[in-house]
Amino acid sequence: MDLELFYEFGSQYSYIAVAVAEQAAKAQGLDLAFRPFLLGPIFKAQGYSTAPFVQFPQKGAYVWRDIERVCEDLGLPFQRPSVFPRKAVLASRVALVGMDEGWGIAFSRRIYQLNFAEDRDIEDEQNIRALLSDLSLDADAVLSRALSPENRERLKAQTERAEKLGIFGAPTFVVGNELFWGQDRMEQALRWAKRAKALP
Amino acid sequence: MDLELFYEFGSQYSYIAVAVAEQAAKAQGLDLAFRPFLLGPIFKAQGYSTAPFVQFPQKGAYVWRDIERVCEDLGLPFQRPSVFPRKAVLASRVALVGMDEGWGIAFSRRIYQLNFAEDRDIEDEQNIRALLSDLSLDADAVLSRALSPENRERLKAQTERAEKLGIFGAPTFVVGNELFWGQDRMEQALRWAKRAKALP
Repeated sequence: MDLELFYEFGSQYSYIAVAVAEQAAKAQGLDLAFRPFLLGPIFKAQGYSTAPFVQFPQKGAYVWRDIERVCEDLGLPFQRPSVFPRKAVLASRVALVGMDEGWGIAFSRRIYQLNFAEDRDIEDEQNIRALLSDLSLDADAVLSRALSPENRERLKAQTERAEKLGIFGAPTFVVGNELFWGQDRMEQALRWAKRAKALP
Repeated sequence: MDLELFYEFGSQYSYIAVAVAEQAAKAQGLDLAFRPFLLGPIFKAQGYSTAPFVQFPQKGAYVWRDIERVCEDLGLPFQRPSVFPRKAVLASRVALVGMDEGWGIAFSRRIYQLNFAEDRDIEDEQNIRALLSDLSLDADAVLSRALSPENRERLKAQTERAEKLGIFGAPTFVVGNELFWGQDRMEQALRWAKRAKALP
């Protein structure tokens, strides 16, 4: 593992990162680990009353325009969600199971698609079931693993690790102890990962 | 004028933008207007109790590391200031005078140098006088213009214009009604300005 990508399903910039990072890392021969986590508890601990983009309306207004422009440049579909930020505890638990089983990235992309291209609820169990079926998975079996105490604990641990690393927003790329916050820092993170890999 | 750069002397990312934007715009044949303004009143109006990087310590810690890395990449000297954010009302007033007289950008660069490379007070009148003398200017005459009621009003008006544009942080590039927040959005802003210029 050369670098990590911490992402949260409610975060619009994470949508972009998850859409493009796998291929970008592969193109540079880098092994990128996907780390779904929850920003809610971190925001709360850091003194935000809600997502910063909601708490500070001018920044929020800017950010929706910014993401529109970035998605247009990248050819990614985008529709501003009617609910923001959307909670995604179940989806995050499912994504963790998917990481073990090889379908976690594809699942994550589809969750983002629901949230930021189709404006649909991503916490709704029926939507998640439909998505798992689309991926030819046994939704009952996956949900049962996702809701196991061990898996709940894993999501909590991943979120705690994010907090300990100093993560305060998403997406965040991690190379060793270096954080790179924002989808627009991806190229820099990849450069650092390449450099770190080349060290003896 | 093809695009504008709103910057604040207390802002570390504005330091980078002011250091590199003039040349970058010139290289693309674009006419860039420099707009010093004050973030303090805007932060206050938007519900921040201080600079966001101070109000939210994890983000603050990240940002100092980030700027160190970015300055290293660009070959810009950087030293974390012992006081942050530094106020710079007088320096901003002087910069406005300088914009009329052709030395405003050079003066701005030196103020940033004091703040972010030499960790010196940028509101101190003696430091500003020394800097004006370095630029072969008559410090008394400049300060008298800077402190005139008309010039004080201009800085206020520029700050109010920034607020009306929806600016919530610095640096911000402006192309028509489009905002591009952050030194890392400069290339995108230049692309937009080029496109806008090419329109019939």
